[in-house]
Amino acid sequence: MGHTFPGATSPFGMVQLSPETNQQPMYIDGLYNPEVYSYCSGYQYDDSSIFGFSHTHFSGTGHSDLGDFLIMPTTGPLQLEPGSATTNQEGYHSKFSHDHEYAEPGYYRVELDDYSISAELTTSDRVGFHRYTFPRSDSVHIILDLMSNIYNHDGKNVWVFIRVENDSLITGYRQTHGWARTRKVFFAMKFSKPFHHYGHKKYDDVAYNGHYKDFEEKENFPEMAGRNIRVFFNFNTEQDEKIMIKLALSSVSTNGALKNLQEEIPHWDFDQIKQETQNKWNKELAKVEVETSTEAQKLTFYTALYHTMLGPIIYEDVDGSYRGLDQNIHQSDGFTNYTIFSLWDTYRALHPLFNILHPKRNNDMIKSMLAHYDQSVHGMLPVWSHYANENWCMVGYHSVSVVADAIVKGTTDVDLRRVLEACKNTSTVPYYDGLEDYILLGYVPEEASPYSVSQTLEYAYDDWCIAQIAKKAGNKQLQDGYMKRSESYLNIYDADIGYMRPKLENGEWRDAFDPLDTHGQGFIEGNAWNYGLYVPHNINKMIAMMGGKDKFSEHLDIIFTTEIEDKYIEKNEDITRDGIIGNYVHGNEPGHHMPYLYNWTNHPWKTQSRVRMIMDTMYSSDKDGLCGNDDAGQMSAWYIFSALGFYPVNPGSDEYALGSPLVKNAQVDLGNGKKLIIQTVNQSRDNVFVKKVERNGNIVDGYIIKHGDLMEGGTITFHMQNVPNNQ
Amino acid sequence: MGHTFPGATSPFGMVQLSPETNQQPMYIDGLYNPEVYSYCSGYQYDDSSIFGFSHTHFSGTGHSDLGDFLIMPTTGPLQLEPGSATTNQEGYHSKFSHDHEYAEPGYYRVELDDYSISAELTTSDRVGFHRYTFPRSDSVHIILDLMSNIYNHDGKNVWVFIRVENDSLITGYRQTHGWARTRKVFFAMKFSKPFHHYGHKKYDDVAYNGHYKDFEEKENFPEMAGRNIRVFFNFNTEQDEKIMIKLALSSVSTNGALKNLQEEIPHWDFDQIKQETQNKWNKELAKVEVETSTEAQKLTFYTALYHTMLGPIIYEDVDGSYRGLDQNIHQSDGFTNYTIFSLWDTYRALHPLFNILHPKRNNDMIKSMLAHYDQSVHGMLPVWSHYANENWCMVGYHSVSVVADAIVKGTTDVDLRRVLEACKNTSTVPYYDGLEDYILLGYVPEEASPYSVSQTLEYAYDDWCIAQIAKKAGNKQLQDGYMKRSESYLNIYDADIGYMRPKLENGEWRDAFDPLDTHGQGFIEGNAWNYGLYVPHNINKMIAMMGGKDKFSEHLDIIFTTEIEDKYIEKNEDITRDGIIGNYVHGNEPGHHMPYLYNWTNHPWKTQSRVRMIMDTMYSSDKDGLCGNDDAGQMSAWYIFSALGFYPVNPGSDEYALGSPLVKNAQVDLGNGKKLIIQTVNQSRDNVFVKKVERNGNIVDGYIIKHGDLMEGGTITFHMQNVPNNQ
Repeated sequence: MGHTFPGATSPFGMVQLSPETNQQPMYIDGLYNPEVYSYCSGYQYDDSSIFGFSHTHFSGTGHSDLGDFLIMPTTGPLQLEPGSATTNQEGYHSKFSHDHEYAEPGYYRVELDDYSISAELTTSDRVGFHRYTFPRSDSVHIILDLMSNIYNHDGKNVWVFIRVENDSLITGYRQTHGWARTRKVFFAMKFSKPFHHYGHKKYDDVAYNGHYKDFEEKENFPEMAGRNIRVFFNFNTEQDEKIMIKLALSSVSTNGALKNLQEEIPHWDFDQIKQETQNKWNKELAKVEVETSTEAQKLTFYTALYHTMLGPIIYEDVDGSYRGLDQNIHQSDGFTNYTIFSLWDTYRALHPLFNILHPKRNNDMIKSMLAHYDQSVHGMLPVWSHYANENWCMVGYHSVSVVADAIVKGTTDVDLRRVLEACKNTSTVPYYDGLEDYILLGYVPEEASPYSVSQTLEYAYDDWCIAQIAKKAGNKQLQDGYMKRSESYLNIYDADIGYMRPKLENGEWRDAFDPLDTHGQGFIEGNAWNYGLYVPHNINKMIAMMGGKDKFSEHLDIIFTTEIEDKYIEKNEDITRDGIIGNYVHGNEPGHHMPYLYNWTNHPWKTQSRVRMIMDTMYSSDKDGLCGNDDAGQMSAWYIFSALGFYPVNPGSDEYALGSPLVKNAQVDLGNGKKLIIQTVNQSRDNVFVKKVERNGNIVDGYIIKHGDLMEGGTITFHMQNVPNNQ
Repeated sequence: MGHTFPGATSPFGMVQLSPETNQQPMYIDGLYNPEVYSYCSGYQYDDSSIFGFSHTHFSGTGHSDLGDFLIMPTTGPLQLEPGSATTNQEGYHSKFSHDHEYAEPGYYRVELDDYSISAELTTSDRVGFHRYTFPRSDSVHIILDLMSNIYNHDGKNVWVFIRVENDSLITGYRQTHGWARTRKVFFAMKFSKPFHHYGHKKYDDVAYNGHYKDFEEKENFPEMAGRNIRVFFNFNTEQDEKIMIKLALSSVSTNGALKNLQEEIPHWDFDQIKQETQNKWNKELAKVEVETSTEAQKLTFYTALYHTMLGPIIYEDVDGSYRGLDQNIHQSDGFTNYTIFSLWDTYRALHPLFNILHPKRNNDMIKSMLAHYDQSVHGMLPVWSHYANENWCMVGYHSVSVVADAIVKGTTDVDLRRVLEACKNTSTVPYYDGLEDYILLGYVPEEASPYSVSQTLEYAYDDWCIAQIAKKAGNKQLQDGYMKRSESYLNIYDADIGYMRPKLENGEWRDAFDPLDTHGQGFIEGNAWNYGLYVPHNINKMIAMMGGKDKFSEHLDIIFTTEIEDKYIEKNEDITRDGIIGNYVHGNEPGHHMPYLYNWTNHPWKTQSRVRMIMDTMYSSDKDGLCGNDDAGQMSAWYIFSALGFYPVNPGSDEYALGSPLVKNAQVDLGNGKKLIIQTVNQSRDNVFVKKVERNGNIVDGYIIKHGDLMEGGTITFHMQNVPNNQ
């Protein structure tokens, strides 16, 4: 349920080339097919079929799209239909076994048992590189299925356009209406060997208007267009003959894809590209070198680190041009443009992690967000955006957090006034998700939204972030205004019952209320018990409001220890019992800061044991190594921070809360010529409690460490013990 | 049935802004609706309703498409459905009367009676300019109907994308699958006054994916996308208040449209743009100044001259960028790019006319064709192309004729080797319309095509054109090869019966054969009697083959005098009794050279009387002033040439056949600093016969005049009389 994919890609690469193990329609008889959810990234480990290899995938999302340009090699009689996973020998899909499947960063290999074809995949940033090894055959087919989609439904394909430029080069594009409303992806596809025959089948009534002409357009006719098309290319092969394919993507045009193809992979040396991409991965992964107590922990750590570099992805051609939100072609000027912003998830720990490991990329991502803002007809920074589309998923306007965090940490060079203007406009769009009421009343009323409490909490935090930007920009008026807005959480706290709860427009609390339920109670992906603790920018005040440190600590204890009834779980498709500790749901982001909140009570040692417990029980490098969707890398970023012993509880501030490191030692290359050494004394599985923390030999007080101190490098030493430090 | 439109446009302008007087679906219950044919250009004079004003129209075609971005102003309750022309007060359409309708080049005005709105239209090259005068009303609506299409059918709209950028600017695009398979047109639309409210209705199930958001997207929500959408903008108006709209087109992007808008019309002075565009028209129309016997003849002449400048149209943004056949964005480098090439029609007289009146534009059109060739996956010059699409309509590859004519007449500076290569590739694409068989057998066999005889004849002529290019390029081998191919007409002439007729692959004639029928007899838009005389490049040989001059002259006589039975007419939707003289069908192009063929017999005087008769009976400036579709200007170009007394019977040669001028005098500005004077002596309605022709006082022999001689300027004097000159 991690919704990650095993295929090949480069760090933050635009092409994410990976197998699809089933083809689930999004709707069956007009009803949502719950099975489709499992295939957000195209792959489920329990499956035994492969339907082909497509070039675009989300990693770790809870809603999906993409799956572009599926390629499947076959032998024998041509089968253009995919067939059903449950039926062998019908359709082009093939059985496969994990015994003959192998994946490394930047490389994937599998045997397609039905056809005795060995498939290998690697990529550069924008080009998928396929190498298929065939048996001797006079009927080899390589199928390009342009109907295959992730989260597929009738009408998802808006248009498909293909040209057979010559006997080994294909260009084309597909426009889809999936999660992204108006999405165009272009490709250029080159074979290492000329096909001797090709053709296509159209699955709609879109005619080729060869008026008066009797074109045999289904076979060897170089132009195809329509909504639903599958194409095949035929070859003869000798035993063990390899046919390679390079398929380049572009959001701009087929000419853009051709340019990407030519510049990134001008040759046919598969192993060289694999090596180059693996070198890139090694360089990125080597930024953090860890020593762990067990080999499994090291595997888990680097698996998580790998998963933090699968999104956002590069979204521009080699010449810097890309299709923007306004569907015009733009040029990234002085930055690399990125897409796939799952910001409600990733502002929490992924972007803060980038501020340490990839500050330049993060700066480029912020510039990409500002370009999105410039192109937005709503005048808004991204909420959940991909491929020149705003999907509006989840609540808040968390771009402002990413921006504030980078500004406060000094990792961005964007113009402060421009950024502040963008944040201000974003946070004042009246028709956006209860904002007009929020501004007027100081909270989102129940009448405006079923998620009114979550919205108010996230807005209040976001507004605090904007205040930080205003402060840096020297705009006292906006700073004060947004600081005031940042206290909106006060308006939805019902002191009588001790919970954040939905409030009506007239100022009265909504009557019916179940603080354990995540549905219909004003929250999304959380309930009043857990999501109700989301005031990261003013934790002390929240704790005081909720009855003081000890009462708050008890509240946290109850969360972590009270088993919640099944009825509160079964309705949530994206959490499982595995991801739950009591009423704490690690699979959903609103809880991610929660284990660290003990630091603000009299029991910081509970933070230490909880984070170690979570790391120990909810992460592994195995097939079920995540307790929920990886949420575009946020889950993995939580792990990386926590394993190193600190966590950004309040992005937009320069402070990290100290936890309990999992690693024995770690060395982080800070990219500024300095190295941060995390070291432990007496580290062990049982020694989860921190006796003291030293920075360069000096005691660190208050379970807080500043970003600036981290970035100076040096050594942080955690002295571990097996009993709480109760002083 | 001329299929011209009365709206406003500039000479060869990209925007052709004109009223739609009905909305006919292309299919009713799955069957072709013959009524749709009347609405190729959106307008029928007999109608009494106006459905709005759209920005793209073909002029004079026999198949259609376009009708983009229909705007309709209304008052009163909002009606978003067009309604039916036969039902008043239902739907947004309005009654109108020709009494309150007025058109000039570049200007159109009409009263919309249902709403007491006065509508005025003018254009620059790329921008439509609307001026609506309203009554006092608090419920004015301006409707932008993005579902309205010419030749509309379910699924013609592929995608629509609209943004309300602010309270007076809209941008967007539409992708259609009409006659053009994959066609995108972008727009930017600016109101002179802010609307106070706007909204849209979607007529499909394409959802706006505002996941978790409760957007009120139907009203005042600035982003719309889907397949079928109508948008409205609301205003209040004072009595006689004017609201103006500028709508710019682009094939590239909304940014391109915005640039066109800003550069071409940066102000709101409607009258200034009207004046500037009318100045352009005057400049173009004044290239030929004629004196005629009657005012009606002068009106007809200039109406025809006007109709020769409505296509091909400019097809690029102000910065020279345009969407090419490969759907990539290209830049016209050193030329202006044009589209709408109805070449089977226009190679005959329209492009030859351009070689005299618009040689620079014609050169640019040739460069546009070569750009098309460069972008063609088939490696072919255009056949019937518009808006980055090849429609393949009719037979032949007549781009080569346009190129040859310009080369022979010295009006193009294209590289001869490049052009020859393009012509060679175009004429050797094996899967194109019987070409493989034609090359192998020397004729298109009956089995390959129902139009085998027309194809063979047109190919043979086209090949002769390629030979002329090869000759100019000094490529003797290709010259000889194509000269040999140009004799292919010999292979389909059945000397036993004296007709061109369909031949089988095995070399035998097809048995069943009716030389009068235009259907199923190997011909298209013609029959063996008339189309069978199409050997323009070797008329003497054809005449000899057909029995010599006198027999041929008799054949022509029979054509012009034998009434054909109704059964041969009723099946042809695009010809009418009005366009027929005996078995001569002036409404279709294969006959256009025919009246001039008497020049090659012993009876040139019959040419003279026939062309005068045709001009007299088949052209006027009235609403029924054309006897068939104007065929993208070809019918009108025939008239202009004939009225001036000469005609390009064999484009690709430098010779014109002399006829009988209709004008009394004419002065043609040759653009090279010289003027050609056509003058007549004793011109009258009865004096249709030419006694002698002098050029600068010297007798012209043989009823032939050379292009080079014409272009030197000077005076050609036709001495007219009322009896044939039988010498």
